Amino acid sequence: MTSTAFTDLEIAHMLADAARTAILPHFRRSDLSAENKLSEGFDPVTIADRAAEVAMRAILQDHRPQDAIWGEEFGQTPGQSGRTWVLDPIDGTRGFISGTPTWGVLIALSDGKGPFLGIVDQPYIGERFVGSAEGATMTGPLGPQVLQTRSTTDLDQAVLFTTFPEVGSQEDRAGFESVAKQVKLTRYGMDCYSYALLAAGQVDLVIEAGLNAYDVQGPIAVIQAAGGIVTDWQGDPAHDGGRVLAAANPQIHAVALDILKKA
Amino acid sequence: MTSTAFTDLEIAHMLADAARTAILPHFRRSDLSAENKLSEGFDPVTIADRAAEVAMRAILQDHRPQDAIWGEEFGQTPGQSGRTWVLDPIDGTRGFISGTPTWGVLIALSDGKGPFLGIVDQPYIGERFVGSAEGATMTGPLGPQVLQTRSTTDLDQAVLFTTFPEVGSQEDRAGFESVAKQVKLTRYGMDCYSYALLAAGQVDLVIEAGLNAYDVQGPIAVIQAAGGIVTDWQGDPAHDGGRVLAAANPQIHAVALDILKKA
Repeated sequence: MTSTAFTDLEIAHMLADAARTAILPHFRRSDLSAENKLSEGFDPVTIADRAAEVAMRAILQDHRPQDAIWGEEFGQTPGQSGRTWVLDPIDGTRGFISGTPTWGVLIALSDGKGPFLGIVDQPYIGERFVGSAEGATMTGPLGPQVLQTRSTTDLDQAVLFTTFPEVGSQEDRAGFESVAKQVKLTRYGMDCYSYALLAAGQVDLVIEAGLNAYDVQGPIAVIQAAGGIVTDWQGDPAHDGGRVLAAANPQIHAVALDILKKA
Repeated sequence: MTSTAFTDLEIAHMLADAARTAILPHFRRSDLSAENKLSEGFDPVTIADRAAEVAMRAILQDHRPQDAIWGEEFGQTPGQSGRTWVLDPIDGTRGFISGTPTWGVLIALSDGKGPFLGIVDQPYIGERFVGSAEGATMTGPLGPQVLQTRSTTDLDQAVLFTTFPEVGSQEDRAGFESVAKQVKLTRYGMDCYSYALLAAGQVDLVIEAGLNAYDVQGPIAVIQAAGGIVTDWQGDPAHDGGRVLAAANPQIHAVALDILKKA
């Protein structure tokens, strides 16, 4: 199935390393060029975004030519293996162009059943969150660490994250707020970093809407390996994107899901 | 006026170093104890918060015994010099207990006219933003750098940050939104890190309300040294806290202030 001696996990790290190298020279540069992809919305694409995906695709072409690729910037490239590398070179472009340290490189390896290996990488801080069949770990400024989600079961003790206060559509927002009004603390603006914090046992819930597959597959693999659960707002698989509920454990997931279903 | 050969800037760095050492062992620890200071609100205080202020106060007692101290945790200690060290050991405690990397240690040295030396330090990332009569600089993962605010003059090109979508009171929120609806991009949740990003030329405006003096004096000194302007929503000095408008340059400040005054 694969053409080299590297394991999938090693390939995933090579991808994340290449993305870091491609992106960091462009971070916080005042001459950063941002374009609008959608005329009606604000979805900037940077040179860094494209350079990182090009670098990752080159590695996959060399080492995993039979696998498909689905990248945020350059779309879908078919494969023959039944496996797909799902890449978002810069998740959180709004945060990136504002200089925040909470955007990330998202990498997943997926089969028909969903992602089974994932990385959330924050190049500026030098943090990497990894989930696979071998477990969930992170490296960062404080050294390596095993990732383990929290055991919070009561909503009134839970910390909830999302990226935008508006969440998505008005309906999406209403769903989000039906949970938000019952938790201890709601925080905004962390992009994919929220999922990393959930895997690291720092927060209990992440609720988002309007996501693409490449926004969520890397985080799903990391969170599941750390003991968490990610579904859509109906309890079905979330790896195609859309509305996402990520939870630290089955109990808090069930409580939040019950509210979202009724909203 | 001072009792040792260290400059004020050297003392400020010593304070920030001591705070880092005191705080980092407690960051992202699952056994972190958080108390509620205000029964009606959520304002957690951590062991780290107190340990950092104790460490900073010990340095000032040794090296600046004649200066006053105003710390978020232990209040005001009078002095004889007319100068005050204003300390917020952990600004952004909600972010801290959620594991985000956007809380900070805020240090200012102030006289009757306001802060003239300031530090915004992010211990986890290892970033330090410094402003004084000698200029504005930062150190971090990408090395040392001079801080210079942006030259954006049009509101429809501006990036605006604040910490909470609710901003403060309903009136505060209405004022904030009167500006927010005219900018290119609004982002939330960055705590004091927003001010550092403004000084670093990454964002154009930060608008907040309900601040204390120790929330804003460090940022004011850094932003002013980097070319920016910080006032309250009437254009008066903001170093006592309350409603704060921080802007990258006099032009964008005037435009935003005009809207806030009318709101």
